[in-house]
Amino acid sequence: MKGTVGELGEFGLIRELTSRLTSTPAVQIGPGDDAAVVAAPDRRVVATTDVLLEGRHFRRDWSTAYDVGRKAAAQNLADIAAMGAVPTAVLLALVVPAELRVTWPVELMDGIRDECQVAGAAVVGGDVVRGETITVSITALGDLRSRPAVTRAGARPGNLVAVTGWLGWSAAGLAVLSRGFRSPRAFVEAHRRPEPPYHAGPAAAELGATAMTDVSDGLVADLGHIAAASGVDIDVRSAAVDIPAQMTDIGQAVGVDPLHWVLTGGEDHAIVAAFPRDVKLPARWRIIGDVTAPAGRTPRVTVDGAPWDKAGGWDHFGPDA
Amino acid sequence: MKGTVGELGEFGLIRELTSRLTSTPAVQIGPGDDAAVVAAPDRRVVATTDVLLEGRHFRRDWSTAYDVGRKAAAQNLADIAAMGAVPTAVLLALVVPAELRVTWPVELMDGIRDECQVAGAAVVGGDVVRGETITVSITALGDLRSRPAVTRAGARPGNLVAVTGWLGWSAAGLAVLSRGFRSPRAFVEAHRRPEPPYHAGPAAAELGATAMTDVSDGLVADLGHIAAASGVDIDVRSAAVDIPAQMTDIGQAVGVDPLHWVLTGGEDHAIVAAFPRDVKLPARWRIIGDVTAPAGRTPRVTVDGAPWDKAGGWDHFGPDA
Repeated sequence: MKGTVGELGEFGLIRELTSRLTSTPAVQIGPGDDAAVVAAPDRRVVATTDVLLEGRHFRRDWSTAYDVGRKAAAQNLADIAAMGAVPTAVLLALVVPAELRVTWPVELMDGIRDECQVAGAAVVGGDVVRGETITVSITALGDLRSRPAVTRAGARPGNLVAVTGWLGWSAAGLAVLSRGFRSPRAFVEAHRRPEPPYHAGPAAAELGATAMTDVSDGLVADLGHIAAASGVDIDVRSAAVDIPAQMTDIGQAVGVDPLHWVLTGGEDHAIVAAFPRDVKLPARWRIIGDVTAPAGRTPRVTVDGAPWDKAGGWDHFGPDA
Repeated sequence: MKGTVGELGEFGLIRELTSRLTSTPAVQIGPGDDAAVVAAPDRRVVATTDVLLEGRHFRRDWSTAYDVGRKAAAQNLADIAAMGAVPTAVLLALVVPAELRVTWPVELMDGIRDECQVAGAAVVGGDVVRGETITVSITALGDLRSRPAVTRAGARPGNLVAVTGWLGWSAAGLAVLSRGFRSPRAFVEAHRRPEPPYHAGPAAAELGATAMTDVSDGLVADLGHIAAASGVDIDVRSAAVDIPAQMTDIGQAVGVDPLHWVLTGGEDHAIVAAFPRDVKLPARWRIIGDVTAPAGRTPRVTVDGAPWDKAGGWDHFGPDA
């Protein structure tokens, strides 16, 4: 597999990419026709889309194509799980420069395929065009298995707030990388390749979660979306949030309070949800806060009863984005 | 609505875009949560994705943002119809430069919304990020209404080939535009804003179409996809293909055989299908050819019994793309 994307041509590249895919029983018609056909057993389909740009969402010197593929798929599949659905399928719209070596999109596709397999989904279709900037647009589909979707709007005063998955690891890894280091490896890996707890989304729905989202913009920011949609206040107890000793060490080394990473770091795609107080949560969930009636006119998220100054989250057009 | 995308910010732009959308009964959860939820009544969902880049697929001096939106939605919705499905929903992943005026993405969204309404679908979700090149990635979903999907693989020797919609109009319009003219308007309009016959896809499925596709790469090229997938030869009778008098006039003016546009022009998204010989086709279908057993080892498409030299179609990485 030598040469560039331009030398291989569009149809050659598509052949190369689709030849590497695996399927699942849900895929009734896969890539190669005008459109794919995917099972939607409960008569509804959950759908989400996200786009990643080189230079903005990933750097080729920091992440391999394979890792970019894993990450691009993960962030979409996590959105499906955060509705309480089981991921079924992914579509890829890819922009690549003609002078890019073919190995890059091929390894990207391997990463997307493998992340799909972790989540139980398959790549069913896509489009590839030539352009200046590598652009990876992914759409993910999922099935709700006869359960109601868990939106951001159902949190009620008296609910508890719980989280599962990783928090702040990607942000700590990015801090390490942006200072020119490549270790500690666990955090660098977490930045390159998140591991969303896909199974936890449908499990939370089954347990009666009233509101749910994945942590893509940062815990405080994403809880803010739940607070706003539900019309409630949410208070996070910082002592209840897990900060690994090694993250504290990195924080000291680079001069950052690790709580900042945990409360504002996105991209790990942890799943955070509100539950009725009497819920019996599995071991890997941590209860980190409470839902209360809104104290003021605007729903808000507090940490230990006070506003969190650096509310975190990303505005992709803002000066720091 | 003054100013640039960068001044408005990501969340402001998303608010502006989603505020303009309309819904349909199929949309159970629309934009604003982790993912959308769309009805899939027959327990399958049809899905396709396409990406359009500024400079490659559209030019801002030739097409308004509104027209780009109509066109981007149309080419995806036509893929859904070409499976025999009814379009239900669309997701948009949009890359826009920070210095772009807000009116551009807003009018793009209006175009996408309006084209969705023509097809009976609604915009249910999306993503917006900042980047150098305007990039419009659309994913469309559809419902098969309990009919089998009509793929490219079912054409059988003895079938007839029929087409409905417009052929070559967009190519003739592009020829006009690229020579610096803005008329005849009907062809220029056809290039800016295709009108795929969405209803004809499900109708053809109901009539027993054995294979179907939309004409996006050119009639000969797209019939080539059916021939290859079905393992058959296809012959097109050029005299049976409609060439409007005005297209002949344009051809004379610019020195192009209009048959070339009709046989190789993509982007009108006509629908072409193979049918059993005894089919009763509605008035707007034209029978243009026949399916035969493959004469050689490679399935092929001929025009009046001979290969068509300029087989047409686009290779997006090729030297002419």
